[in-house]
Amino acid sequence: MDEALRSGWTVRFVVATEAAARTVEVPGGLLRIAPPHRLERLGTFEQGNELIAVVDLPPPGDDGPLDAAELVLALDGVADPGNLGTIIRLADWFGVRRIWCAEGSVDAFNPKTVQASMGSVFRVEVFTVALPVRLARARGEGARVYAADMAGAPVFEAELQRPAVLMLGSESHGLSDAARGQADQVLRVPGGGGAESLNVAMAAMALCMEFERRLQS
Amino acid sequence: MDEALRSGWTVRFVVATEAAARTVEVPGGLLRIAPPHRLERLGTFEQGNELIAVVDLPPPGDDGPLDAAELVLALDGVADPGNLGTIIRLADWFGVRRIWCAEGSVDAFNPKTVQASMGSVFRVEVFTVALPVRLARARGEGARVYAADMAGAPVFEAELQRPAVLMLGSESHGLSDAARGQADQVLRVPGGGGAESLNVAMAAMALCMEFERRLQS
Repeated sequence: MDEALRSGWTVRFVVATEAAARTVEVPGGLLRIAPPHRLERLGTFEQGNELIAVVDLPPPGDDGPLDAAELVLALDGVADPGNLGTIIRLADWFGVRRIWCAEGSVDAFNPKTVQASMGSVFRVEVFTVALPVRLARARGEGARVYAADMAGAPVFEAELQRPAVLMLGSESHGLSDAARGQADQVLRVPGGGGAESLNVAMAAMALCMEFERRLQS
Repeated sequence: MDEALRSGWTVRFVVATEAAARTVEVPGGLLRIAPPHRLERLGTFEQGNELIAVVDLPPPGDDGPLDAAELVLALDGVADPGNLGTIIRLADWFGVRRIWCAEGSVDAFNPKTVQASMGSVFRVEVFTVALPVRLARARGEGARVYAADMAGAPVFEAELQRPAVLMLGSESHGLSDAARGQADQVLRVPGGGGAESLNVAMAAMALCMEFERRLQS
């Protein structure tokens, strides 16, 4: 809620139970009190509907040329709203400012996505794009396109250049052949254990960690 | 299911709908068919109750001395079963063979934990321990104890020794003062963005990634 109020987005009003209203500072005139049963009906979650902000979606930002040191995440078919929210949050952690989602991905403003992003949805812009077209444009701007896959090269041994696009496949089907064909290099998370795969958000975290390390070193 | 059958644990029987039974190979005599409505009542999930194995819990393993290059995860108050399952899975990815959970943590055999571990619960042993006592013993065996916290030193700049214990706090309260006091060094995940925190499983992933890199380099 604090993130929403600080975001610069237009908050139409905040509606809260009396108890929940005491936990936030809402600018004058925006706060309305409602009984718990009405908030239960307004909210979309099983629990945690005591405090709701109604916010205008911002106009789409400018998906302009990449900065020299930029890292962009590109998601090809992520369908689970919680996974997308978690990826938005980790992107924000590393200062990634935009995410490209292939058409047909889950909506960045799905309530579960917004919740899982823990406020990062206000700072990381998610663009729905025709991925092959956008990747080609990025490559024209000097970006190198990486993709995450079990069959890739261990990321510790790979050369990582920026600007970079890191592409991740869907939870259920992994990286599609089409997406793999668009990558300059396929990377995997090194690890010598028995697990056969990683959740898409965990793979994103691991690879972003190594991109961050190279940036700092 | 395949992981359960391959695990070496005692599988009492497998009960499945006719359709689900066709998707697995179950050794002779163990498979029973039941109608979907009976499996719905047996299973604990909202969906995905078509195929259920009844498995004996194994006797507790030996929480013996640490190997020279071992990394152990120690969880102080992780309460969400999905988070624990995700941590078991990433531990397995990196070949971590044991996890210590402070007393009062969520049970490793909670159905949601087992599900989120994606079979890794058969390979990574979770011990419930008196954490201060177990950490002291580990230190006596030459282990260095690290803890994850926002206020720690950037892990890229830290010296990482093995055997190592990496301690993580709870989802809601972070690292407790008591746990912090037991650490030789506090580490944070570097990142220059706007997010104020990371989910405990994401922090574990990021730090394990750097432990793995040092091991390989």
